[in-house]
Amino acid sequence: MVTILRIGHRKKRDKRITTHLALSARAFQASNIIIAGEEDLQLQESINKVTAEWGGDFQISMIPYDDWKPFVIQWKSEKEEIIHLSMYGETLSVFENSNDFKMLINDNNKLNNLLIIVGGKKVPRKVFELAKWNIAIGNQPHSEVSALAVFLDHLNPKALDTCFMGAKREVKPSIFGKKEYKDENYEE
Amino acid sequence: MVTILRIGHRKKRDKRITTHLALSARAFQASNIIIAGEEDLQLQESINKVTAEWGGDFQISMIPYDDWKPFVIQWKSEKEEIIHLSMYGETLSVFENSNDFKMLINDNNKLNNLLIIVGGKKVPRKVFELAKWNIAIGNQPHSEVSALAVFLDHLNPKALDTCFMGAKREVKPSIFGKKEYKDENYEE
Repeated sequence: MVTILRIGHRKKRDKRITTHLALSARAFQASNIIIAGEEDLQLQESINKVTAEWGGDFQISMIPYDDWKPFVIQWKSEKEEIIHLSMYGETLSVFENSNDFKMLINDNNKLNNLLIIVGGKKVPRKVFELAKWNIAIGNQPHSEVSALAVFLDHLNPKALDTCFMGAKREVKPSIFGKKEYKDENYEE
Repeated sequence: MVTILRIGHRKKRDKRITTHLALSARAFQASNIIIAGEEDLQLQESINKVTAEWGGDFQISMIPYDDWKPFVIQWKSEKEEIIHLSMYGETLSVFENSNDFKMLINDNNKLNNLLIIVGGKKVPRKVFELAKWNIAIGNQPHSEVSALAVFLDHLNPKALDTCFMGAKREVKPSIFGKKEYKDENYEE
């Protein structure tokens, strides 16, 4: 189970970035995303609609901004792992070659419970402290959307090839593009 | 040389997504991005500022929306390769195991000239036709930002570890986060 915590969401300004973040989390097999910021039912609805159409059981929930801290502290007290993605963190390739990275995968070749924190522009200092590992998907200014996707892809290289159960819509992959299967129950 | 062509940019609505796209292109060692859409000098300036501070020689340019087509046709006539990233394309893992993928890397272990097209929500049918390969970074709805980053990461797994020359600012990677080196010439 991989849980994503997005710290910061301003309904107007961040709608599209947070949507891209949630869609990427889902596409790369995270199980849920928690968004700490302004409540945004429309965003939540649009992600749930994608899940209803394209399958799987990805969950999205929202908490007030300030609740990120008790949430992370609770997670930590349960001794589950916490990774914070930041351009200031340790280089991904260094982390990948460490024993810590291997320990994220358990004996059954499955991922242990893991919280991945992605911030916006200004991340509270406390996040760096509470995370067990601060990891950089490159130490250059980039995007939390690409950082999350690349990290999840490295964590589980089969994520992209995993099917989503109960899909009403499904792409038929094609080098020429645009072939789609729609379930008989699917209504446009 | 990897060139990114972003088809579609609305100055107000797409500012942040296109910014994230350009930053990801740069962070993953593309050499330039061309944005076909509304002219947006502020966007261009903010990316150039990042390059001036953080190094390298990433280029950003803009063309009117309709010019995407002659640009791609010209590229095609010069017999350079074109990849279009789309959730409707061929699965990445299938493409990666093909000879076509290997041919993107030349005898000197360098990338051949390559155009990577990323669209927004509605991509003209013609883009699918003009591209040599339509490739999906997962056949689920996701984000062009994450698709581009993951594709560039697969294309050049060392991209993230490559230094940017002439940087005035540089992160000192740390598992505890936030250590930065600033050149003596750098002014906040």
